[in-house]
Amino acid sequence: MSSKYPWSVRGCLPLCALTLEAALILLFFFFTYYNASLEDQEGLVASYQVGQDLTVMAALGLGFLTSNLQRHTWSSVAFNLFMLALGVQWAILLDGFLSQLSPGKVVIKLFSIRLATMSAMSVLISVGAVLGKVNLAQLVVMVLVELTVFGTMRMVISIIFKTDYHMNLMHIHVFAAYFGLTVARCLPKPLPQGTKDKEQIATRSSLSAMLGTLFLWMFWPSFNSALLRSPIERKNAVFNTYYALAVSAVTAMSVSSLAHPQGKINMTYMHNAVLAGGVAVGISCHLIRSPWLAMVLGLVAGLISIGGAKCLPFPHLAVGF
Amino acid sequence: MSSKYPWSVRGCLPLCALTLEAALILLFFFFTYYNASLEDQEGLVASYQVGQDLTVMAALGLGFLTSNLQRHTWSSVAFNLFMLALGVQWAILLDGFLSQLSPGKVVIKLFSIRLATMSAMSVLISVGAVLGKVNLAQLVVMVLVELTVFGTMRMVISIIFKTDYHMNLMHIHVFAAYFGLTVARCLPKPLPQGTKDKEQIATRSSLSAMLGTLFLWMFWPSFNSALLRSPIERKNAVFNTYYALAVSAVTAMSVSSLAHPQGKINMTYMHNAVLAGGVAVGISCHLIRSPWLAMVLGLVAGLISIGGAKCLPFPHLAVGF
Amino acid sequence: MSSKYPWSVRGCLPLCALTLEAALILLFFFFTYYNASLEDQEGLVASYQVGQDLTVMAALGLGFLTSNLQRHTWSSVAFNLFMLALGVQWAILLDGFLSQLSPGKVVIKLFSIRLATMSAMSVLISVGAVLGKVNLAQLVVMVLVELTVFGTMRMVISIIFKTDYHMNLMHIHVFAAYFGLTVARCLPKPLPQGTKDKEQIATRSSLSAMLGTLFLWMFWPSFNSALLRSPIERKNAVFNTYYALAVSAVTAMSVSSLAHPQGKINMTYMHNAVLAGGVAVGISCHLIRSPWLAMVLGLVAGLISIGGAKCLPFPHLAVGF
Repeated sequence: MSSKYPWSVRGCLPLCALTLEAALILLFFFFTYYNASLEDQEGLVASYQVGQDLTVMAALGLGFLTSNLQRHTWSSVAFNLFMLALGVQWAILLDGFLSQLSPGKVVIKLFSIRLATMSAMSVLISVGAVLGKVNLAQLVVMVLVELTVFGTMRMVISIIFKTDYHMNLMHIHVFAAYFGLTVARCLPKPLPQGTKDKEQIATRSSLSAMLGTLFLWMFWPSFNSALLRSPIERKNAVFNTYYALAVSAVTAMSVSSLAHPQGKINMTYMHNAVLAGGVAVGISCHLIRSPWLAMVLGLVAGLISIGGAKCLPFPHLAVGF
Repeated sequence: MSSKYPWSVRGCLPLCALTLEAALILLFFFFTYYNASLEDQEGLVASYQVGQDLTVMAALGLGFLTSNLQRHTWSSVAFNLFMLALGVQWAILLDGFLSQLSPGKVVIKLFSIRLATMSAMSVLISVGAVLGKVNLAQLVVMVLVELTVFGTMRMVISIIFKTDYHMNLMHIHVFAAYFGLTVARCLPKPLPQGTKDKEQIATRSSLSAMLGTLFLWMFWPSFNSALLRSPIERKNAVFNTYYALAVSAVTAMSVSSLAHPQGKINMTYMHNAVLAGGVAVGISCHLIRSPWLAMVLGLVAGLISIGGAKCLPFPHLAVGF
Repeated sequence: MSSKYPWSVRGCLPLCALTLEAALILLFFFFTYYNASLEDQEGLVASYQVGQDLTVMAALGLGFLTSNLQRHTWSSVAFNLFMLALGVQWAILLDGFLSQLSPGKVVIKLFSIRLATMSAMSVLISVGAVLGKVNLAQLVVMVLVELTVFGTMRMVISIIFKTDYHMNLMHIHVFAAYFGLTVARCLPKPLPQGTKDKEQIATRSSLSAMLGTLFLWMFWPSFNSALLRSPIERKNAVFNTYYALAVSAVTAMSVSSLAHPQGKINMTYMHNAVLAGGVAVGISCHLIRSPWLAMVLGLVAGLISIGGAKCLPFPHLAVGF
């Protein structure tokens, strides 16, 4: 990507990635097997569909959300896919090893893929803070380290507070945002030219950033309900997320128009604020019993998100707050 | 948007939208509650999936369909999302109040969201006639007025003719087209410059208009079957819509090539004609018992749609006929 | 399209397409009827959803995959839709006639549409080799001929080797690639100018080619499992396709970066290699019992695909190998 790295680093990088891939295959060979029975009470197609919604959000939503930067159009989408594919493999192994008490083989279910996709999305969110400053090798290291830290943190929380999968994972946005900011601080200062490029937003790609936002907006109810077991809780989660998102979309458009001196809509503010409602109801969405509360959360989250986006230096991370 | 409105209007608009949002939250607080049981016999995930298809059609299909105008690329997609989010909230309240005989609290089911999304799509269709001539405040008023008129009209029809949800709602295209034309007539004459901009179609955004068309085409069977209760009727609706759409796509491509002096495909004609089959079988799709009838309807609708698009002044509305 | 054809050919073409469409409607009128019962044990919505995933892959994935050529942006997506709509109608009739032993009416089920969509995808893959060299009339002929050859070949294989739908259809990639190459050889030599245009890849459309790749990548597990009847086999097919795709995505990014002298990612190589894993496990995906084997297949397929793309003259076809 940037030309300051010597050829040797660049040359060995794909070999490292291939070696890592071979190591992952060996780990899968020794430690995993498929569940021979049909474990899902909700039916194969329904369970597959929920997992697919998460894949659409991760590959398409988060991939296109950051495609409006000047230098990174389709390549940022490609890097996003790379991190997703690598991250899911590592997260499945890690979740399997951490969730069992005695060492043994890891059973792969449809639910494991769902959980691993959601874990891998933490990396895709964090990357918003470092995009344009890292190369492919650094991304590989970041995927492995962040998923290991996130998995360990979730296991510790689950042991101490006796929480279930849903409660553990809904801290993902805060975790991912702070992890991304920490990585961005540790990186060497980028060239001034690089910074300028990052700020320049290509208007012709705004349509694709809008596409990413829409896919996240449309499938967020799937994200917030994917790890819940009880059908009633899932229904409530779908409803509350839906209402919170509707209100934060209206809020985002109105306030972002207010913030601009000529009354125009600021796209970057809007992208984040539209989704803020879904983030805000994430942890509690299965417990809220009436729509108005979810709507209030969506309204407040939309206002905070636009306020935050005006002050924070990393606009693409504001979705985490 | 346009610069002829004084600052005061522009400044108060977001405040009005926020006040309206607060009023909606209060209405939800006093008048709505969730259904505590799992009401759907078809399963939560299946029911949610059908509602999601409608959201994809509304947010992505209708949003990107009109994104090929010169001045409105991503902002028309954003306005589309704004109207959808606002419209769904208002339509849920309105449908709830109108459908109950004695005053009382409104129960929110997955079916209500499905119905509200379809009602809100009437506004998104109408907007094609006034896009580029209205500002955000006028859009808010249009959303509220059109949904109220549409909801009242559907209730009156349902009382007089004893029709079900499906029959009431399938007039949506005709209603939306005429409502949009009426609003466009009532608006002050646009500046000549604005008219020219509206006519100019940006070739580089045609790809995104094609994306919107495809999403509408792919999910139209969901739209035509979403309000039917009987599984056999839903199956017939899916089949007939599928065949009508296939034929109208072939017809649209062929005839639009015939209409052009150099044999090229006219994109605007095609966008509408591709979808004409789905509109044509809308009302009767659950009653047709053999594919050939749906295919004949698709063929005729495709021909009429291209003929209409050549004569009508508002090409984006032709989908309604 | 190209200007070397006289007006008469161009003028009669849409009339031919319309006549063909009328003939298809007559065939449907005499020879088809809907199944009056609900034949699917898996539920209407679940069955419809799988068919819809295939439609998304065909209309959007394959349509946008080839949209990065200089001269064909939205029109290649439109031609893709045309061939899909025409091909599905012909494939349903053909599959119906070929699958019954004694002549009689063809019953249309949801499974028939699924099968016909997959057959029609063979044409959409082949077209990658001839895009930019054929006109609409030649495309119509190609759709009819290729589907007839493919349907007959599948019937012959199924009678000789007693294989089921899944095994018959998974040769689709090899068949489509060779058919496309054969057609390309038979066509008259294009003008040198045309060849140059085909090579020129518009960078601004790369984002949309990426979109097509992502949609194919995300829904490939649906494709590989769509024709399997047993739930356990379908689950295995989903799992194995998922793992093979994840590994081939990682491989594609790494190796395509290695192949470039400056370490950049070659988009065309990557598009094909990302999907190679799904093609490679296609035939055997329901029989593989552990993830590592699918991952090895994905790794090898990714490597071969990039090697093939560097040597083959038709990069858009490499997905078939």
